[in-house]
Amino acid sequence: MAVRALFGEVALSPAETFEDVFKAVAEGTCDCGVVPIENSLTGSVHRNYDLLLEHPLWIVGEVKLRIVHHLIAMPGVRLEEVRRAYSHPQALEQCRAFLRERGIEPVSVYDTAGAVRLLKERGLKDAAAIASAQAARDYGMEVLVSDIAEHRENFTRFLAIGREPARDLHDPKTSIVFALKNIPGALFRALSVFALRDIDLMKIESRPIRGKPWQYMFYLDFDGGMDEERCRRAVDHLSEIATFLRMLGSYDKGKEVEDRPYLREPL
Amino acid sequence: MAVRALFGEVALSPAETFEDVFKAVAEGTCDCGVVPIENSLTGSVHRNYDLLLEHPLWIVGEVKLRIVHHLIAMPGVRLEEVRRAYSHPQALEQCRAFLRERGIEPVSVYDTAGAVRLLKERGLKDAAAIASAQAARDYGMEVLVSDIAEHRENFTRFLAIGREPARDLHDPKTSIVFALKNIPGALFRALSVFALRDIDLMKIESRPIRGKPWQYMFYLDFDGGMDEERCRRAVDHLSEIATFLRMLGSYDKGKEVEDRPYLREPL
Repeated sequence: MAVRALFGEVALSPAETFEDVFKAVAEGTCDCGVVPIENSLTGSVHRNYDLLLEHPLWIVGEVKLRIVHHLIAMPGVRLEEVRRAYSHPQALEQCRAFLRERGIEPVSVYDTAGAVRLLKERGLKDAAAIASAQAARDYGMEVLVSDIAEHRENFTRFLAIGREPARDLHDPKTSIVFALKNIPGALFRALSVFALRDIDLMKIESRPIRGKPWQYMFYLDFDGGMDEERCRRAVDHLSEIATFLRMLGSYDKGKEVEDRPYLREPL
Repeated sequence: MAVRALFGEVALSPAETFEDVFKAVAEGTCDCGVVPIENSLTGSVHRNYDLLLEHPLWIVGEVKLRIVHHLIAMPGVRLEEVRRAYSHPQALEQCRAFLRERGIEPVSVYDTAGAVRLLKERGLKDAAAIASAQAARDYGMEVLVSDIAEHRENFTRFLAIGREPARDLHDPKTSIVFALKNIPGALFRALSVFALRDIDLMKIESRPIRGKPWQYMFYLDFDGGMDEERCRRAVDHLSEIATFLRMLGSYDKGKEVEDRPYLREPL
């Protein structure tokens, strides 16, 4: 879904792990990779922050996909017949109120689409799955009740990664990663280079540095692109303060898109 | 191990989930709870940051436990007979170099102690587990090779939580959580209250706010206790800027302790 929203009708190459996505792009097997970086309810996908640092690649795009949870069952099953609902623990948690009101028992499985497959394989008539409309279509199942999660504001933000920086940007943001001396006021001074130039920070994330317990790398997203002088000056200023600094890329801010099955056009 | 290091010979009450630990303390079933908050290689345990916010409890102590991975086998098994090693994926990853050199195939299982139990239950003579010395003793198994991880600097930091703030502190740090207006320079201004008073920040962690996509709660640890005037003034100053602010507690900084089996004395 995220790949379609970002690139339209391109050839897809699924990968087993996030690391395999980065490897495929670095080695040239794929032109671009797409990985989740953050969910608006559960937080960052920290593994992908680490992988950004480990690979000499660029962030080239972003998209925010609204995650919609549906109650899905075998064709013909009625809501009042459903005793159990299978899904990933996070999806079950997000639909807890819906399940409790109807006396449906939550059952944890490894992933949401796998829950739909499990229903089909076992031919379960007294159970349902919580998953996307895409999963329902893929396995020929029916959506019993749409959009059952408590929080409708559930987005997963995906990043596109490539071997070259993005070009021709319209409304860019920039991601960088840096480390600081372990002295009082270091982070304050680092953020001052943006505050003094009225550059809006969109996100800050800290990750441990291996081999240096209780020291951190900071990942920062700020509003603006490196084609703007004030952004270039801010990063230049930061490089005076930081013990390590790497540009991860300027790229257009991602739009919010709905999770719809079989999208054919780029958004 | 962390409970012993913090409290010595107290009665233990194991809990299934982190949420159950917080619940047991909030309901008075236990005097204190102990949960992991951060590992120096893999990062924060974000669920526990969220649980700190969801419960009206205080952080009352801290300990940093060095994690030591051992290669463990059935009694009598020799290193050259070991073909496979079972453990949690993170432990396998941290011992990858050791396993590769010896041509031992890594096999992922749910947890490290469970890997030792699995060896014992199946009576495997051509396999080993990677786990703590405690797990080896608990199941009557032998440590074949000690301390096999690549990074020796592997600590997990645990927090103790209680219903009342800690007292009689010697070398305290303080944890707070706050939210800010979504305006440029907000975080910079928030950190200025500490920088202007030379208060050292030890950690900053951001977590999403539910229902407000791309807005964050900031968890901050700083050097000093709320019995110091400059810390009280800094937090008071921050309360003018923050849209939400809660004190999580002042508590003595945790010592680094070794992961040793059957520790009998508090450290």
